[in-house]
Formats: sequence, C-alpha cells, structure tokens
Amino acid sequence: MTEDALRDWWKTAIIDMEPGRIAFRGHPVQDLIGNVTFPQMIWLMVRGDLPDAAQAHLFEAALVAAVDHGPQAPSIAAARMAATCGVGLQSAMATGLNMLGDVHGGAGAQCAALMYDIAERAGPMDAAVKAGLAEWRATHGKMIPGFGHRFHKPVDPRAPRLMALVEAAAAEGTVSGDFARIGQAVQRQIGADRGTPIAMNIDGATAVIFCELGFPAPLSRGLFALSRSVGLLAHAWEQTEQGGRNKGPMPPAILPRYSG
Amino acid sequence: MTEDALRDWWKTAIIDMEPGRIAFRGHPVQDLIGNVTFPQMIWLMVRGDLPDAAQAHLFEAALVAAVDHGPQAPSIAAARMAATCGVGLQSAMATGLNMLGDVHGGAGAQCAALMYDIAERAGPMDAAVKAGLAEWRATHGKMIPGFGHRFHKPVDPRAPRLMALVEAAAAEGTVSGDFARIGQAVQRQIGADRGTPIAMNIDGATAVIFCELGFPAPLSRGLFALSRSVGLLAHAWEQTEQGGRNKGPMPPAILPRYSG
Amino acid sequence: MTEDALRDWWKTAIIDMEPGRIAFRGHPVQDLIGNVTFPQMIWLMVRGDLPDAAQAHLFEAALVAAVDHGPQAPSIAAARMAATCGVGLQSAMATGLNMLGDVHGGAGAQCAALMYDIAERAGPMDAAVKAGLAEWRATHGKMIPGFGHRFHKPVDPRAPRLMALVEAAAAEGTVSGDFARIGQAVQRQIGADRGTPIAMNIDGATAVIFCELGFPAPLSRGLFALSRSVGLLAHAWEQTEQGGRNKGPMPPAILPRYSG
Amino acid sequence: MTEDALRDWWKTAIIDMEPGRIAFRGHPVQDLIGNVTFPQMIWLMVRGDLPDAAQAHLFEAALVAAVDHGPQAPSIAAARMAATCGVGLQSAMATGLNMLGDVHGGAGAQCAALMYDIAERAGPMDAAVKAGLAEWRATHGKMIPGFGHRFHKPVDPRAPRLMALVEAAAAEGTVSGDFARIGQAVQRQIGADRGTPIAMNIDGATAVIFCELGFPAPLSRGLFALSRSVGLLAHAWEQTEQGGRNKGPMPPAILPRYSG
Repeated sequence: MTEDALRDWWKTAIIDMEPGRIAFRGHPVQDLIGNVTFPQMIWLMVRGDLPDAAQAHLFEAALVAAVDHGPQAPSIAAARMAATCGVGLQSAMATGLNMLGDVHGGAGAQCAALMYDIAERAGPMDAAVKAGLAEWRATHGKMIPGFGHRFHKPVDPRAPRLMALVEAAAAEGTVSGDFARIGQAVQRQIGADRGTPIAMNIDGATAVIFCELGFPAPLSRGLFALSRSVGLLAHAWEQTEQGGRNKGPMPPAILPRYSG
Repeated sequence: MTEDALRDWWKTAIIDMEPGRIAFRGHPVQDLIGNVTFPQMIWLMVRGDLPDAAQAHLFEAALVAAVDHGPQAPSIAAARMAATCGVGLQSAMATGLNMLGDVHGGAGAQCAALMYDIAERAGPMDAAVKAGLAEWRATHGKMIPGFGHRFHKPVDPRAPRLMALVEAAAAEGTVSGDFARIGQAVQRQIGADRGTPIAMNIDGATAVIFCELGFPAPLSRGLFALSRSVGLLAHAWEQTEQGGRNKGPMPPAILPRYSG
Repeated sequence: MTEDALRDWWKTAIIDMEPGRIAFRGHPVQDLIGNVTFPQMIWLMVRGDLPDAAQAHLFEAALVAAVDHGPQAPSIAAARMAATCGVGLQSAMATGLNMLGDVHGGAGAQCAALMYDIAERAGPMDAAVKAGLAEWRATHGKMIPGFGHRFHKPVDPRAPRLMALVEAAAAEGTVSGDFARIGQAVQRQIGADRGTPIAMNIDGATAVIFCELGFPAPLSRGLFALSRSVGLLAHAWEQTEQGGRNKGPMPPAILPRYSG
Repeated sequence: MTEDALRDWWKTAIIDMEPGRIAFRGHPVQDLIGNVTFPQMIWLMVRGDLPDAAQAHLFEAALVAAVDHGPQAPSIAAARMAATCGVGLQSAMATGLNMLGDVHGGAGAQCAALMYDIAERAGPMDAAVKAGLAEWRATHGKMIPGFGHRFHKPVDPRAPRLMALVEAAAAEGTVSGDFARIGQAVQRQIGADRGTPIAMNIDGATAVIFCELGFPAPLSRGLFALSRSVGLLAHAWEQTEQGGRNKGPMPPAILPRYSG
C-alpha cells in the first residue's frame, strides 16, 4: 500500500494541516480567530460554509437556549457525581454527554426528521401534517417529539421566545418561515387529536430553527449535545468547588429499597 | 429527612426552575435567548456573571482557536471510528471528549496554573519566572506545558494571532496584559535554558487569555474540551456521511505486528 | 414525600445492604466469595439465580471466546490511544466499551433476537427459518448478523469450537440443543440463498449459547461487552507499558488527505 | 514508510491473527475455549501467562467480591439513569465505568502501591510500615486507602472472608502471605495512630490478593473496574426491565435547591 493510499484512510474536508499551517474548510486559522464568532465557527466546521450575521444570530439563539436543565436531568446529575469521583473535568463532561441518547437528547433530531418529512409531502399543509403524524405514530408510537413537557406546564418559556426570533428572521428574509408554519401546524393537529392544546417545547423550537437554517436532521442531536455541554461543564465545575467524594444520587441516609 | 433537607442534596446556584420558569444565574432564560452571545452564555453559566462585549470578544477568540487538530489527534480519530460503530452522535462525541486527559487536553490548565503561580510570587518578573519554572520542573519534569509543538515547527499559527488579540485588548484596557508578559517571559526563559528559541503553542496562548480574563486554572481544561467538542461533532458527522462500518485505525490490509 | 417512598426511587432486587451486611440476590456476600465462580456470579447478578456447574461451564466458554479481536477493532484502538492521553485505566476501558454499538457489538443481540423469533414460529423448522429470515431482511436489510466474517475466511475458529461445546452440553442434557439446530438451519438457508456456503461467526455462536441458556436477547450485547472489557483492559495496560503520548491512529508521518 | 514499519505502529504481544487464525498470548483460541476459566483468561490476557488452579481460585475470589455496591454508588446510579436515556447497554455500562476514578475506584491501586512500597523497604516490618505510612501521608494526606469504610461499620463483610482465603492460600503455599502480613500491620498501625481500631475494607483486601499474586499496582484499578462492570450490567439491565424515561437522581417532586 502506497503512502498516498494510506493518507486516504483518514481523508477529510474539514482541516488541512502542515507544519506551521492550519486551515479549516479552506480558511487559514489565523484569519478566523478574532474575525468569526463561535457560532459561525461551529457552522463552518460542521457544514463547510460561513453563515452571514443574521443566520448566525438565529443559530446562536438555539445554542444559547439549550445549555442546561438542572440536576434532575440524568446527564447533569451524572456529570456532577463524576466530578466527585476523581476524574478530569473532561471525563465528567463526557459522562453526561454520553447519556444524551434517543430519549434524553434525541427529540430534536426526531422532530426535525418529522418536519422534513412533512415538508416533502405534496398537497396542502393540513393533509401533509396529518399524513406525516400518522406515519410517525405507526412507526414510533403515540408521543410526538418536540411537543409537550412533563415539567413545564403549560408552557416551556424557551419555545415562544425562540419562535418569536424565527418569525422575526422570516420577516427579514433570513429564513423562509416554512418550518415555523409546519411546527405550528403540527402543534395544532396534536392538540386537535387529543382534544386539548399542547405546547411546543425546546426540542421542537430548536428543530424549527435548525430546519429553517438547512441543517440535516441528525445534526439537531449533535448541536443540542454541544449546547448542553456548557451546562455539563458549569455543573461539573460547581460540584468540584462544592467538594464531596463519591456523591451518590441521594443523601446516604436514604437507603435504596430492596425489592427481592 | 425533611423534603427541605433533601432539596439541599442537589443545590445549585446555576439554575432556578419551576414549571414554566427557567432562570440561569438569576436571568430568566427568555431574556438571555437572542440577547447574549453563546460565549457570553458560556461565561455566565460557568462563572455567574456576564462579560462585557470586549471581554467576550477575547474569550470567543480562544474558543474559536481550539476547535480541531485533525484525525491524527487520538480524540478525533476515536470519535470518527465511533461514528461507524452504531452509536449516537452524542456518544461518538463523548468517546473523543473522554480522551482529553492530562496529556491530550490538560496542557492549558497546567500552563495556567504555572502562570498563576508566577504571578503570585513577589519580586522582579525574571526571578519569579525562574523560581516558578524550577518548581514546576522539580514536580512535573522537564517539559513545560504551553510551549513548543511536536508538529508545528517553528510556529503554531494560532498562538501569535491570539497573542496579538491579547495585546490589543490590553491596549484598550479590557485586560491587564500581565499574563501576556508572564507568558512571554516564560517563553524567553525556556529558550535561554535550552539555548534555542521555543514558540508558544495554542495551549500557552489560550491559557494566557483565560488567565487575563480571570478563569481559575482548571477551567482552561474544561473550556478547551468545550471548544474541541466542535471538532468532534464535525468529524463524527463527516465520517457518518462518508459511511463505513467498524472503521479501524488503519486500512485492514495493514495487520498489527505480533511481538510476542 | 415520606422516606419510605423515597427509598422506592432506587429499588432493586440485586443487592441488599445495611452497615456490615451485603447480600446479592439473597446470598450474603461472604457465602459467595470463594464458593461461586466468576461466571456464576455474573449469571447470579444479571438473572437472579445460580447456574449449576454444567450451565456455568458453557456460559464461561462464551465469555472466554469474545475477549479480544486486536488493535484493528476500533474499540481496542481507541482504548490504547486513550491510555496515552493521561486518563485512568478505567476511562481507557470505558472509551472502548462505549464504542460497542449496534454495528460493533450488537450482532450477537440481533442474532439472538432472530433465533428467538424463529423458535416462536409454528410449523416445520425450514419454513420458520425462511419466514424469520424474510422478515429480518425486510426490516434490517440483507446482512444477517452472526454469519460470515469480513476477515476470518473461510472459518472463524471460535465458532466451531463453541458449537462443539453446545452439542456436548445438549448430549448431556444441560441444554436442549434447539438453538444450535436453529443456528445451523439459518446458516444452511443463507448459504442456499446466496448460492455459496457461509460460516457461523463468533456472534452467531455466542448467541446460540446465550439462547440455549435462556438469556433475553439484549443481554447478548451486555455479556459481549463484559467479555470484550477483558481485551480492553489488556490492551490499555500493554499500551501503558509501551508508553507514548497522544498516540494517533497512524504514524505521524502519514498525514491525513485533505479532500476539500 | 514501508508496510513492515507501519505494522509496528500497533504491535502487540497479546493477540496474533490471520484469516482463520486467532491466538492469545501464543495459545490458539480454540484451545482456550472450554479449557480455561474466565479468570484464567483474564490473567492470561493481562499478564501473558496462565495461572494454576490455586492461583486462579484466589484471583477469582477478588473478582467475585467487588461486583457491586448498590445504587448509592455514583457509578451504579449513573449506569441506571443512562439505561433510561435511549442508549445501548454498553453505553450505560461505559457511563458508569468511566466514573471509577481516583476517588471511586482508585483506592485498590493506591493501597497496592503503598504495600509494594513497604515491601521494598529494608529492616523490620514495623519500621517499614511506619515509614511507608509517613511518606504516604506527606504526599497524599491523612486518609489511607484500603482501610475504614464510611458505610460498613464496624466491618466490611467482604474483607475478612477474602483475608481468610489469602491465609488458606498461604498455608498451601500458593502465595507467600507477605502482603497479608503487611496489610495487617498497616491496619494495626493506623489503629494505633488514631487510638481506635480500624477495619480493612474491600479495596485493602483485594489489593492484598493482587499483590500476593504479583499484579502491578495500577492493575488493581483495572481489575476492580472489570469486576464492577458486572454490577453495572446487572443494574443497567434491571433498570431497563423496570422501564422509565430520563430517570433523574431523585423523584421529580424533589426540586433541587436554588442557592444563588
């Protein structure tokens, strides 16, 4: 095998390096540092192009919104416990990040997939929404990701704020607004189906934003993970400062029930 | 144990929640979304206060600079391999993040600790630098974190750009410039000790920034982890798009040598 | 909420503890130590009952067989790289373990699910096998987990040895032999379908054993993970002894190809 | 770079493979399956040689003893929470395994290092113990790993049972008994120093066994991690069967205290 062929094993369009030179997606790193925002850099790395300021502003709102949901979230609790077990800060973060699976962090990607599916259907919106929801439920069950919240009732305060920003961006021509309309139509339909209104939650609202900006559905999960890593770091660090050794999920006096 | 006492087990100053209400560090989430940048949000979450625009600009430069160092970095290679093993995008990211240990991602925090140690020593800078370096070497060995690079010779292109931003920020009064001076003095001293100049690397330059902005030394590691997570996501996603199943570190034709 | 109710949150039938007392599945720990084998302990912990010696012998063979597949396996490579990054041995192991996903470690559980599905179908074996395979392919695609190997051609040496042990156990009445027959019928059918014989691989053979012994299908994945953890530890430790810092997937001279 | 040189990058004395052939430490895999126990296989993989039956019996006792310490242990709690987040069983296990750091799982390795240090000191045992303890405390602080238990008072039931097995093995000539004597001398000395007896705990007793059998100190941590993986699997699976989505550390009604 030639060295040339070997180099192909790890081929990448993200980064180009030689000694003394680093370029990301074709941009020398020294031209990016100080000149692009962190959200623009994230976009560039993941997608290959640079967003303009208005796109980056909407993208940034979604990143800001999802940073944390407190120590009751299993990922945050695990990161805090890990911080008392004698591992590095990065391992405490990784412990929590690793738990953002299909159930804990996957709703955004699922909601984005549903909305892309609806967008691709021909015919009037209402029929497309009904057909999309029917197919989703047949495959995945009753619960529609992105709507309703077991804790924030009646309204998750992040969703209306994000949707207002989407509407403003649509009014300015930054995005089409198509996915905001789809999201709202889905919300109405679920409400009609169950006979009582339902709120859009953070996963739904961020999925709307990522779809409006053209991110493939699976990236909703990755971008959520990036955003939540901020909370993981903040909590792991706060716990480090609080101290403790081998912190368990409850005070030690509360022994688990033996059910055998 | 009273419910009141129980609530203390997971006490936090980061987030305050009730149904329908989320506040981070005292700020309702809907006031933050769209109004603070992602770097400001990171700072707020980790430290509790909001930086002004100039501080956030310098902080952002450090976050942008460290996002990736390509598939030869073990963390990036592992994340890409994980992406071909049938795990979620968040687990691929966590796999790489978990590897940013003392050797792979810890140099920034170590360099920051060294610079804080030098800053706290009384007397003239040169003596403080010599004493700080001597103590470091006695405890940790010859290699000084933050200086030199096994690949980027003679110069890591990220470091001079970051240092130029620090100097501009010092000129504007955003930061004191003390840690830039310490970093440069350390660089000169190492060069004198070994009889040949050495360059500051990305870990040294980001440590200077985080010290100038007042972040405790261990956070240099956490903030690096946050920045590098962007590269982990970008590479895991690119690999997902490239496809592959159970991608190994080398083409399958290259069998590992049996040395038994 | 009463303390009694709180204790239910972490209820478990696995372990019962008070100060000075630990019992697993009803057995005081001091009665188990020295009196049960490690495989018996694994079985007890996961299932709740103790296997007899003959069952434990067959179970043990499956655990022994799957410990390692060398540094070309992404999980092993990642564990070795992690061992050079300044993290603890447990984190190096966890890094590799975390990669044993649907593609890298999931074949055993999928194969077990397929065999249980065939076992539950009424009518003659051949028809059940054809129907089971057809349904599998309709849902999951052409590849049948547990058969064929991209590296070990024509035969994976672990599979025939494991199957010989199953046959011996069936002859002694330890197991029924039903799943060995199903596995062999599936193997014949795939061979007939593609017009050329195919070998059963390690995932197929261990799935046969776990099914013969009555383990639910998803546990095939967990037991594989347990077995492979041995290889992860051995390789992480060998790499630690070999030394190295930030070991990448290939020698540093082989730069990844930039494809942008 | 020649292919020959490339093969050296991943050189290993653990496994030798060609298509159709797998050998571990020089033994064809088909000769090991069914003929060595799982503990013998673990020893072979990690150390390179096969233990005899008596050595393997003592080694096995240590592996059996450390499998679990219930859901109050942060690692077990995290694995159970992860199992409700939509990740694979291996990721739930990895999440817990990753938390067995210096504080949560490192005591065995630290205790083994202390005992090896004492063993290497010249002169009478009591002086060596005093000197070893003094050096340990000067470097690491007051707490001596392997002795005392915050929960199991007065006695951790696993330790006396393991020590009885060590004594029996010493009487039969399987091991020297040197480290049992060192462990007991350390225990007496700590008791004398603090004026009240202290018990040896599981970490101390398993460290005695691993030292008697000649395992390097850092492997105590890896072997503990392997043993505890059994509990991680059992609990992750029990939680999977119990169900739940995004299980937090406490019932949702117990909101974390906001301390800001």
